[in-house]
Amino acid sequence: MSASRQGRPATAYDVARLAGVSQSAVSRAFTPKASISEETRAKIVEAATALNYRPNVIARSLITRRSRIIGVVAAYLQNHFYPDVLEAMSARLKERGFHILLFTADASHPADPILDEIIGYRVDGIILASTTLSSHLAEECRAARIPVLLFNRTAASAGISSVTGENERGGELIGRFLAAGGHRRIAFMAGVENSSTSRDREGGFRAGLAARSLPLHRRVVGHYRFDRAAEAARALLSDPEPPDALFCANDHMALAAIEVARHEFGLRIPQDLSIVGFDDVGPARWPSFSLTSFSQPVDGMVESAVDLIAGLVEDPSKEPRHAIVEGDLVVRASARPAPGCVAAGDRLVWRGDLDW
Amino acid sequence: MSASRQGRPATAYDVARLAGVSQSAVSRAFTPKASISEETRAKIVEAATALNYRPNVIARSLITRRSRIIGVVAAYLQNHFYPDVLEAMSARLKERGFHILLFTADASHPADPILDEIIGYRVDGIILASTTLSSHLAEECRAARIPVLLFNRTAASAGISSVTGENERGGELIGRFLAAGGHRRIAFMAGVENSSTSRDREGGFRAGLAARSLPLHRRVVGHYRFDRAAEAARALLSDPEPPDALFCANDHMALAAIEVARHEFGLRIPQDLSIVGFDDVGPARWPSFSLTSFSQPVDGMVESAVDLIAGLVEDPSKEPRHAIVEGDLVVRASARPAPGCVAAGDRLVWRGDLDW
Repeated sequence: MSASRQGRPATAYDVARLAGVSQSAVSRAFTPKASISEETRAKIVEAATALNYRPNVIARSLITRRSRIIGVVAAYLQNHFYPDVLEAMSARLKERGFHILLFTADASHPADPILDEIIGYRVDGIILASTTLSSHLAEECRAARIPVLLFNRTAASAGISSVTGENERGGELIGRFLAAGGHRRIAFMAGVENSSTSRDREGGFRAGLAARSLPLHRRVVGHYRFDRAAEAARALLSDPEPPDALFCANDHMALAAIEVARHEFGLRIPQDLSIVGFDDVGPARWPSFSLTSFSQPVDGMVESAVDLIAGLVEDPSKEPRHAIVEGDLVVRASARPAPGCVAAGDRLVWRGDLDW
Repeated sequence: MSASRQGRPATAYDVARLAGVSQSAVSRAFTPKASISEETRAKIVEAATALNYRPNVIARSLITRRSRIIGVVAAYLQNHFYPDVLEAMSARLKERGFHILLFTADASHPADPILDEIIGYRVDGIILASTTLSSHLAEECRAARIPVLLFNRTAASAGISSVTGENERGGELIGRFLAAGGHRRIAFMAGVENSSTSRDREGGFRAGLAARSLPLHRRVVGHYRFDRAAEAARALLSDPEPPDALFCANDHMALAAIEVARHEFGLRIPQDLSIVGFDDVGPARWPSFSLTSFSQPVDGMVESAVDLIAGLVEDPSKEPRHAIVEGDLVVRASARPAPGCVAAGDRLVWRGDLDW
């Protein structure tokens, strides 16, 4: 008969008494990686099972000063990249004994009021995915000794760790790829203007075009939103001098651009218009899109992020780090290919001009 | 100079002293909907701002026995429906002063081990989205007095509240719609076999076909996964007697079926094969798919779910309820239309045969 059936959930004290061990042994038995003999742990697990006991993680957090909770702020969940990130992050954090307190943000607003709430939960750390952090709040998190990590963004203030893909190199490679493919009116669709990721991709892209002595033909802003990207594509393609190639700062916007180009303007992709994205999300591989895209490996980025935040939780005085996870320009059918594509596993990739 | 700069985060006691009020007034000032005068609240907020104070939600949870945390278990985040649900749920719960502790599940495994962990966090309630609950664990949650709500699933055991769309009616309507559209070899792609949602949709679908004296031509299983659905579609379309219509138990699988039918079998949608889904997710509206689908209104379903779980947190002895949120068969281009489509706002919908 479990204790809970008697009306009161079993406590660590009950388990300790039944197993004939100390309360602190019970606590260690339920703490990941705590030191305890296998024999003692087995006795405790047996007693806990008999009593239907579950450790109260929250009460323990006040003693250990570890809530084992990471606050994760996520936005743009309509973009396939972020649900994939969330799923991988949840699995990886769980392996380290952490769980996710989830906050969704409207990315067009600053994340500051959300962070105010998160800090109230005494989370062990915060991961900001796809949102920026004001230097004011960065300072407050430092004061509250809560480590913060930016995911897929970098911070203006130097002291914040971050994980990104190869935004600059990826952008540059795409610029060179489109130039080498013989395109001459090459346009760019930005994400959100204050996003470091969009800025870095654009910077690299412009450098890649410049290396081939090509100007940027047109620039529009899609705000990382499907509907806004569709609008931006409409404006771009209504131009008297429409582009022959378009690099969108992420796949989500590139999918919108393909839909508009093909179904509203009757354009053939890539014969009339080449489109390239960034992320290499699931739908990029769907034959309807077959999107050429610079990849951001979700697993590698998440692994890096979890390593960094777990390290900072252990030792908040650790030096901030900026991890960059390598990707590849995956060549598919949405853009006219450039010479020099090579097979890498089951994919075709492009690694640059011969003289680069 | 904020207290945190002096090395110790400010406490409620510091704020009370500076504002000249009691500690309990400080606590009320930071509790949603707690009774406190606007004047007192203003004084406290001013003092809290000066001290850089943030209420410790976790410490308070031990006193109030309310963590203000709802554990949410989600799976299938690749399916657009669930990220949308998560985003809406986060926003709605926040309005009620709750936050989400997120657990992702591999839906092919039972959610039980995850729930064991959730209970340790002393969450105020649990929402299981797209996963099932064993009657054993339902009993344990009851013993631990943690209310549970199933989202987009129903429970075999009677005592669990749930929110679903109109699975049976939607399925039946789709069966009648395809029959009325003149199809004669009508197939079904199931989700996960133990999912109540797939079962209910199939039950309604078979009833709809039976009402028109049509047998179910073929049945395959797509497990709610894009890749598995693509495999199932391949098997189905390789059949010597392929279907002329296919109802997939959700849009995510229907998108996979369209990709395979069009790009691997060269079929024209809907001239050679009609495809209908369920959910009406974002990509159903993309012109590449233009998917006919029975809608599950995310906002309505989430509103219902949050109302139910908040009510159960207030009063766990409340009778369990099963809320069904109405949808519509939204007619687009992926299936040959049946007579009797009507305009509803900016959409075309089908509401049944004349004699139904």
